Amino acid sequence: MAERVVLAYSGGLDTSVGIGWLHDATGKEVVALAVDVGQGGESMDDIRQRALDCGAVEAVVVDAKNEFADEFIVPALKANALYQKRYPLVSALSRPLIAKHLARVAKELGADSVAHGCTGKGNDQVRFEAAVAALAPDLTSIAPIRDLALTRDKAIAYAEEHGLPIKQSKKNPYSIDKNVWGRAVETGFLEDPWNAPIEDLYEYTQDPSVDRPADEVTVTFAEGVPVAIDGRVVSPLEAVQQLNALAGKHGIGRIDIVEDRLVGIKSREVYEAPAALALIAAHEELENLTLERDLGRYKRGVEVQWADLVYDGLWFSGLKRSLDAFIDHTQQHVSGDIRMTLAGGRATVTGRRSVESLYDFSLATYDTGDTFDQSLAKGFIELWSLPSKISARRDLPSHSSGD
Amino acid sequence: MAERVVLAYSGGLDTSVGIGWLHDATGKEVVALAVDVGQGGESMDDIRQRALDCGAVEAVVVDAKNEFADEFIVPALKANALYQKRYPLVSALSRPLIAKHLARVAKELGADSVAHGCTGKGNDQVRFEAAVAALAPDLTSIAPIRDLALTRDKAIAYAEEHGLPIKQSKKNPYSIDKNVWGRAVETGFLEDPWNAPIEDLYEYTQDPSVDRPADEVTVTFAEGVPVAIDGRVVSPLEAVQQLNALAGKHGIGRIDIVEDRLVGIKSREVYEAPAALALIAAHEELENLTLERDLGRYKRGVEVQWADLVYDGLWFSGLKRSLDAFIDHTQQHVSGDIRMTLAGGRATVTGRRSVESLYDFSLATYDTGDTFDQSLAKGFIELWSLPSKISARRDLPSHSSGD
Amino acid sequence: MAERVVLAYSGGLDTSVGIGWLHDATGKEVVALAVDVGQGGESMDDIRQRALDCGAVEAVVVDAKNEFADEFIVPALKANALYQKRYPLVSALSRPLIAKHLARVAKELGADSVAHGCTGKGNDQVRFEAAVAALAPDLTSIAPIRDLALTRDKAIAYAEEHGLPIKQSKKNPYSIDKNVWGRAVETGFLEDPWNAPIEDLYEYTQDPSVDRPADEVTVTFAEGVPVAIDGRVVSPLEAVQQLNALAGKHGIGRIDIVEDRLVGIKSREVYEAPAALALIAAHEELENLTLERDLGRYKRGVEVQWADLVYDGLWFSGLKRSLDAFIDHTQQHVSGDIRMTLAGGRATVTGRRSVESLYDFSLATYDTGDTFDQSLAKGFIELWSLPSKISARRDLPSHSSGD
Amino acid sequence: MAERVVLAYSGGLDTSVGIGWLHDATGKEVVALAVDVGQGGESMDDIRQRALDCGAVEAVVVDAKNEFADEFIVPALKANALYQKRYPLVSALSRPLIAKHLARVAKELGADSVAHGCTGKGNDQVRFEAAVAALAPDLTSIAPIRDLALTRDKAIAYAEEHGLPIKQSKKNPYSIDKNVWGRAVETGFLEDPWNAPIEDLYEYTQDPSVDRPADEVTVTFAEGVPVAIDGRVVSPLEAVQQLNALAGKHGIGRIDIVEDRLVGIKSREVYEAPAALALIAAHEELENLTLERDLGRYKRGVEVQWADLVYDGLWFSGLKRSLDAFIDHTQQHVSGDIRMTLAGGRATVTGRRSVESLYDFSLATYDTGDTFDQSLAKGFIELWSLPSKISARRDLPSHSSGD
Repeated sequence: MAERVVLAYSGGLDTSVGIGWLHDATGKEVVALAVDVGQGGESMDDIRQRALDCGAVEAVVVDAKNEFADEFIVPALKANALYQKRYPLVSALSRPLIAKHLARVAKELGADSVAHGCTGKGNDQVRFEAAVAALAPDLTSIAPIRDLALTRDKAIAYAEEHGLPIKQSKKNPYSIDKNVWGRAVETGFLEDPWNAPIEDLYEYTQDPSVDRPADEVTVTFAEGVPVAIDGRVVSPLEAVQQLNALAGKHGIGRIDIVEDRLVGIKSREVYEAPAALALIAAHEELENLTLERDLGRYKRGVEVQWADLVYDGLWFSGLKRSLDAFIDHTQQHVSGDIRMTLAGGRATVTGRRSVESLYDFSLATYDTGDTFDQSLAKGFIELWSLPSKISARRDLPSHSSGD
Repeated sequence: MAERVVLAYSGGLDTSVGIGWLHDATGKEVVALAVDVGQGGESMDDIRQRALDCGAVEAVVVDAKNEFADEFIVPALKANALYQKRYPLVSALSRPLIAKHLARVAKELGADSVAHGCTGKGNDQVRFEAAVAALAPDLTSIAPIRDLALTRDKAIAYAEEHGLPIKQSKKNPYSIDKNVWGRAVETGFLEDPWNAPIEDLYEYTQDPSVDRPADEVTVTFAEGVPVAIDGRVVSPLEAVQQLNALAGKHGIGRIDIVEDRLVGIKSREVYEAPAALALIAAHEELENLTLERDLGRYKRGVEVQWADLVYDGLWFSGLKRSLDAFIDHTQQHVSGDIRMTLAGGRATVTGRRSVESLYDFSLATYDTGDTFDQSLAKGFIELWSLPSKISARRDLPSHSSGD
Repeated sequence: MAERVVLAYSGGLDTSVGIGWLHDATGKEVVALAVDVGQGGESMDDIRQRALDCGAVEAVVVDAKNEFADEFIVPALKANALYQKRYPLVSALSRPLIAKHLARVAKELGADSVAHGCTGKGNDQVRFEAAVAALAPDLTSIAPIRDLALTRDKAIAYAEEHGLPIKQSKKNPYSIDKNVWGRAVETGFLEDPWNAPIEDLYEYTQDPSVDRPADEVTVTFAEGVPVAIDGRVVSPLEAVQQLNALAGKHGIGRIDIVEDRLVGIKSREVYEAPAALALIAAHEELENLTLERDLGRYKRGVEVQWADLVYDGLWFSGLKRSLDAFIDHTQQHVSGDIRMTLAGGRATVTGRRSVESLYDFSLATYDTGDTFDQSLAKGFIELWSLPSKISARRDLPSHSSGD
Repeated sequence: MAERVVLAYSGGLDTSVGIGWLHDATGKEVVALAVDVGQGGESMDDIRQRALDCGAVEAVVVDAKNEFADEFIVPALKANALYQKRYPLVSALSRPLIAKHLARVAKELGADSVAHGCTGKGNDQVRFEAAVAALAPDLTSIAPIRDLALTRDKAIAYAEEHGLPIKQSKKNPYSIDKNVWGRAVETGFLEDPWNAPIEDLYEYTQDPSVDRPADEVTVTFAEGVPVAIDGRVVSPLEAVQQLNALAGKHGIGRIDIVEDRLVGIKSREVYEAPAALALIAAHEELENLTLERDLGRYKRGVEVQWADLVYDGLWFSGLKRSLDAFIDHTQQHVSGDIRMTLAGGRATVTGRRSVESLYDFSLATYDTGDTFDQSLAKGFIELWSLPSKISARRDLPSHSSGD
């Protein structure tokens, strides 16, 4: 029986041609695996058929949308995960999920290796292979585009020569990755970071500069998870889908940054992630209401570490799992309602309420009902500033004031 | 000769009445000190005269706008300082500056104490007194509003009884603190955090939902400091003032959060800081272009610590000074141009360029000219994921995949 | 029915006199609570009787040694908790336990307040009161020594006047706090930090400079908890007690530091904690063997935060609980044997083994059997150093080499 | 004119044979560079002559002992740098210095590449090549042992065949790296981490279990740098050399750990570093006396980052340079005397004094002269514990006490 390799298959040119290349280069039978993470576009059945037409011995399709929302997006939301403060880890979240299914299918169908269509200068190759290493350390990862140095021109030639059913013979100027948490787009003119994005780049978001009436939406969270929108119960996937539509309509969630890739270079990236940015803003503000100060302060540092780790492809690492234990523990009181106004590219929190609120009106108010004992402040301030005061006595004779 | 106290004087009801109270309660002569940090409103001469009319033996006014911009705002900008990711430390920056002048004037005019008009449940009392302790540890701090438990009603009664020249006999519903870096507003109905802010609260920003043409602006930085706007050389103060006008026109910089005060309670705060948010967004993106990845990652943690410290009143602490040494060192290459579109409440970076850029087109491009050696990735990924792979061999027999 | 206060009672002069003082000052009935945390000395029955003789309406004694070991020492060991890298949190661990029993007894016996015998310049007052605030926020904390400004001389006079059965009429030069995790000692001559400790200070440890044969001991851990010594199963309490005897005999665990107290001052402290330092050294090395690199690196930062929090009296805070969730998660593979040599004041790890080990001989060896593929290193190093290389191209023309 | 490569030359078998190998494999002329970092052993003249005898076209020797102490050891000491809390970065400090001279000599003598004798599974290959990349990004790094897969047996055969003047024909069981900051030793039987080190491994330290009289030593620091020993002025190099002798005599500084290498594997390492551990202990305690609490706490986190970075070969990175700016700033008051007792493998601090001390006897003492106002504590504690108290009111109804 021939050896087998499971290829992460998108239905596009590179991985369609990759089926034949892999077989030619390795002699292995190629199993195609297409995973639906909410990228939209073609039907999974069409993709499955194309894989078979391109030479795959088997083609497996998986509807992982709910799994993606429940097990990948929800932890990212609990972590308010924004790499470099901006990027909600769109592709970085789907890669470990796809790798998990690659490893599973490889085991089920007796494959000894897996393959992906990434190039050698991006992050996704690392995310695929590091996840596979952590889940199935005995599988080999193959990257035909990278390791065989295949180019787009060669792919088109191969497709034509072999009569593969690929339509994109004309160059699509955009390189795109999509899932329900967001959309990434790269294209030649953006490689000059001084060039501004153009409206044509976007698909999940409408032009925010168009004048349209604002919408108001209330998101209800239970232990950090969105469970209702405007009072109607939703699954995490539904919450993301509905907010993509609603926030996307107002042009919310466009991102344009110079990003530090794990492989050591800077790249210029444009994303759109309407639900992601709206939900993170809402979740952060609910945490402001329900987490103790010191916990909130420390968690912000953990969030950065979490986002860096996941960006760097270490989803299945021990550190990531232990950080999740911390974050999950912090979420036990993060329940309540956040009201937002959606308009002009902005999701603005305008109200928050919770039975778990730590906001205490009687301590906060300056009006009737104030119960805060202001006489306590003096002692607090004296001891709070005592270290500075003691060192001032040492430092001031020989130093100018304050330096 | 009578003992003297220097009072931080705003010209408003509380500190005007405070002049008499302080004298009554302590027997000390009161010196009023008014510091212009760009709060606008009355002329400093009018404020000075009012202090004298209210009984101050001397009244000193200081135009500290440039000092505030150069020595307080610029370090905050270099630190991208946003407390709880949102609040650009408006009042937290002006308090140590005012305290510095309180200490200076106390020394020059032979006072043994200083005073401020803060209540006992806010942050500003800590910031004033901790700064004074660090700059002049032998001065005593007096807080008449807090320590004498003075209320607004008592203040109005006192003012009327003594014929003080204060106009605000009718209750202004808003409690406001302003300077050139931003404006804070508190008022009764905001003490319910479910209530939305209303348009009437704002002064520095126009309604962002009004349809108006976008503006484009280019800010030039040199070593982290804004030095030109659209090619015209500006001082830091001018940069802030011009961007307040320009970004304020588009409703940029409104903030509405539940905030963790140092004194242990949560409060609901509304701010507007148009220049602050626009400049920080620009500065952050210029750092994305010019800082090495690891330096950028670590600096983000330092920024959080810096903002927490300054929020907590420890501007003149040893740790703050050493963090500034780190941050200043990071800024030596943070020079270049950032182009932003200002519209609809958003300052959106659309272009960045710099002779100090670490973005390398030939390494980043997927088109002609690519010099990145993709064959290096394989070894990198293998060693990068080796710890996960080794632990997988240990963990997987007894664990379900990946958890 | 009279109001009641529960006093943390040690049996010593201060708290014995405190019973009467509390009653005199507040009119409340005083319930004495003595908690055995392994401090040794008098029998708890004698202490109980003395409390009644001194006027307590009830006297409760609790043997909390196993609870202390299981719920307070074990988490500290998992956290390798050493404040300022040195101090294993001896008193900082017992205070929250005692406070927990104060709150429990107050509830059971209908008291509205609790009391302790701490002064106003130490850490323990904070630890008691912060723990009570977190466990029973409606209880009032009373600190007679601090708030009534009571001195030792006044206490002795009061005891003599009221015929209290206290023996220590002659001044004991040492102020001591003990429990099974360690012993703290303060005394006048140590207040000059240039003075060296003398042998007479120590009780848990023998003179390490005496020449005696080394001992070897093997500690077995299961998920971070010591479960056997030299193959004999032990409880955590027994592990600590046995190692106190064995390591104490060799003078292990003496600590002499200038310490930063929470109240803002530096103090000079001498501790001895033989089991604590031996167990932490063993546990750290077992983690070196069984934790992934990145997890170990991040955990070291968490450990510092944990120790600072507990030192600062925040045992029952939300952040502490969430950090425990992280730390507990990290311990699932920290199982195995550590062999140590105990001699001359040092506990030296000489061997470690574990079925959970991540040390892989075939990857580590330079001899026969090496399976490490050295060809992978080149690609790794190239990408690892790429950010430095890119910035070097920017920085070197105008900079001297390396600065 | 032939191309040239500069080889880091130790005088040992591998790099002696490497001269010929490099020439054979690349056709380049080989320049040998030997750097004296205090490793002792043969004279540098002998090493230079051997290089020429082995075929080098030029052989350069550099006495870098003072440079190593001043520019590499002193920053490590200021950072209290201990990787995994234990390892004082012995080899990790010398590699960037040697790389700096490789780059310098390559430029001076017109070489286009540099070479080192490291294998492909250790850290030193990364440290050499990353440093070269940061200092001279256009130089190529060559690693003949790694890239040509050379083994010891092949090296011996080559040396015999070519008549190279190498004595070590018989296998020395120990693989050793030495410099003035410490000594690393690896050998076959240590590759089982359960095996204990034997006395024969050590060279810098005497057996600590031998009974000998204690020594007392006082180290004087100025701004973090050791400047005198027992009152006699010393250079940093002399301080290290003298303490190596003195502390080494007492068996101080032996280290035995399982270490996480950058290349992803764990290894077992034995080090001895008598001066390093004594100086770091002294320096840490002087910081306890002279740094403000918050600065000390934060610096401990920076130290860990510094040690990790330097271990990982990023000495010349931007982050490392900015961390140095922070650390240097913290040292301005770290001046004073530390007295230690050296005995039985331990360097124990027994006294500390400084004109820069922040220890305030009048605030710390419990005896006559106490100036600490204990009444301030109440307000401090109330506000310090207010967040826990507020959350307790939320959490307790539905939670058992304290969990």
